[in-house]
Amino acid sequence: SELATEAITLASPTTVADLLSPPVGVVGPETTVAGALDYLVHTLPVTGITYLYIVDKGQRLLGVVVMRELLLASPGQTMEEIMTPEPFALSPETPIFSAILSALKRHYRLYPVTDGDGKLVGLVFGWQLFEQVARETMAQSGSMVGISKEERLVTPVREAFVKRHPWLQVNLLTAFAAAFVVGLFEDTIAQIVALAVFLPVLAGQSGNTGSQALAITLRGMTLGELANFPIRRLLAKEIALGALNGLFVGVVAAVAMSLYAWMTGAASPLMLGLVVLIAMVGACVGSGLFGVLVPLTLKRFGADPAMASSIFLSTFTDILGMGLMLMLATVMVL
Amino acid sequence: SELATEAITLASPTTVADLLSPPVGVVGPETTVAGALDYLVHTLPVTGITYLYIVDKGQRLLGVVVMRELLLASPGQTMEEIMTPEPFALSPETPIFSAILSALKRHYRLYPVTDGDGKLVGLVFGWQLFEQVARETMAQSGSMVGISKEERLVTPVREAFVKRHPWLQVNLLTAFAAAFVVGLFEDTIAQIVALAVFLPVLAGQSGNTGSQALAITLRGMTLGELANFPIRRLLAKEIALGALNGLFVGVVAAVAMSLYAWMTGAASPLMLGLVVLIAMVGACVGSGLFGVLVPLTLKRFGADPAMASSIFLSTFTDILGMGLMLMLATVMVL
Repeated sequence: SELATEAITLASPTTVADLLSPPVGVVGPETTVAGALDYLVHTLPVTGITYLYIVDKGQRLLGVVVMRELLLASPGQTMEEIMTPEPFALSPETPIFSAILSALKRHYRLYPVTDGDGKLVGLVFGWQLFEQVARETMAQSGSMVGISKEERLVTPVREAFVKRHPWLQVNLLTAFAAAFVVGLFEDTIAQIVALAVFLPVLAGQSGNTGSQALAITLRGMTLGELANFPIRRLLAKEIALGALNGLFVGVVAAVAMSLYAWMTGAASPLMLGLVVLIAMVGACVGSGLFGVLVPLTLKRFGADPAMASSIFLSTFTDILGMGLMLMLATVMVL
Repeated sequence: SELATEAITLASPTTVADLLSPPVGVVGPETTVAGALDYLVHTLPVTGITYLYIVDKGQRLLGVVVMRELLLASPGQTMEEIMTPEPFALSPETPIFSAILSALKRHYRLYPVTDGDGKLVGLVFGWQLFEQVARETMAQSGSMVGISKEERLVTPVREAFVKRHPWLQVNLLTAFAAAFVVGLFEDTIAQIVALAVFLPVLAGQSGNTGSQALAITLRGMTLGELANFPIRRLLAKEIALGALNGLFVGVVAAVAMSLYAWMTGAASPLMLGLVVLIAMVGACVGSGLFGVLVPLTLKRFGADPAMASSIFLSTFTDILGMGLMLMLATVMVL
């Protein structure tokens, strides 16, 4: 589809500077309505002009005139008389998301962009801002599970297979890494089979905590919020959330483990419950940390954080969740 | 933030009809440029008028006149002479995504909406279309892992905890369901501990296949593509993909299982490999099916398909992947 085709050919702009078009429709403040009309008649293509931008001799933006105002003014009036002075303008350094927040309030067709001195350096269309966020977020939710930006319902099986399969194979390899860690504790599992039953519980919960931290970090990246938010604060927040979530989920899981061990006649049901509780808190804290650090690290190395993050993250959280429980059981129960 | 606040107060429109504003700037084909100017002067607020829409006596849309054309025409010319005839128009039934595809090609500020008879029934702003998709997709990627639409980097720990934690507790309950199924096969695991090592591999792979099918189905829902795509075809596609993916991933996993079982001295390494292969194909086919059916079913019952789907889906895929492997091992190996 066209949205998809455009989405892949377009790089990801992060600031207004990446979307800039050269200024058009620029006239001086003493230009009369008749003069502006003459300018419009002699500009080709006139359809490229949406507003008139009024600048002084130093190219500083003084005001804006919409066509309707030009239409309703008398021929002798000057731009200075009919313009809206000091119009809202974006800066080239404005992050896309901040620009979108401005656009949400105003819904102009076109936004002037001025530098630090107030000079008009270009124009950005309102639709460019929205298109960008729509594309980014649409691509993000799919690429976290190995679905390409361009895949749609109508994509044929063969094409979908070629695109999805490599992601599954890479995930399989990382699952082997987690399986290898579990395999190190085969003797422990052979003696306490209840641990095998709780392996998927640990892997699932640490995976969920990590995915939540990842989702918020990726959202912050897409929306350009990370520029104004210290990473240390984000890490501290996710560590606190991991500890809280791990504690409350861990208590429930620990009770379940103790009950299960007791009902199936396993040794030391209470100790096994404690193992599950400690493992859950540790795994959730670690997963929260990884959920923030993995996408940031990948971005630093130029990889697509949405796509690669979930593979690395699930490997980390699997090893952490299951490995921690099995290690603690080996040390504390056996 | 404002985007978030607006996002939660706004329901989710799926067709152009949900975004319709009443038509303004409507004049007849015999109206002269002078007459149109007079109409504009006497319309309050004139800023609400972007284009003039030319309709016949039956309100059928004949053409559109932009302010610039009005400006460059002579006072005696009629709308019929200067209008762009048969302008592009949306229909109230057009799904949002199709409307966006149209907007991507045209980038008009405003789109006229006409009914089956060509009557002008309203207007839709270009930014409304993009805003909608940006909001939906941004919310979707987070809600699949229990992150609310409004959570941002700056959301305090306490608020984030209250919002994220219930989702984790629900997931824990569903993990118990999977653990219960694994527990049914405790005797099997006690005899073949290698199976415990491969539990996370099976759960992970069927979860991934299911997530891919879910992502494509949710994307199709957001983009309104499902209206023109038979569900039977989507199911057939995901079954085929599940079988193909399960086969190729299953062969690799089967070889790994056989090697692992042989190295650790487990009984019937080849048979265990075959168990993994069959379980992987079955689990991936089932997960692909669930990935389509779960969001469709939830939507039918009025639930948010993005939020609730991943919980139901991961329960299904966990039980399917691990349960199938343990059941086959019990029947085929013991």
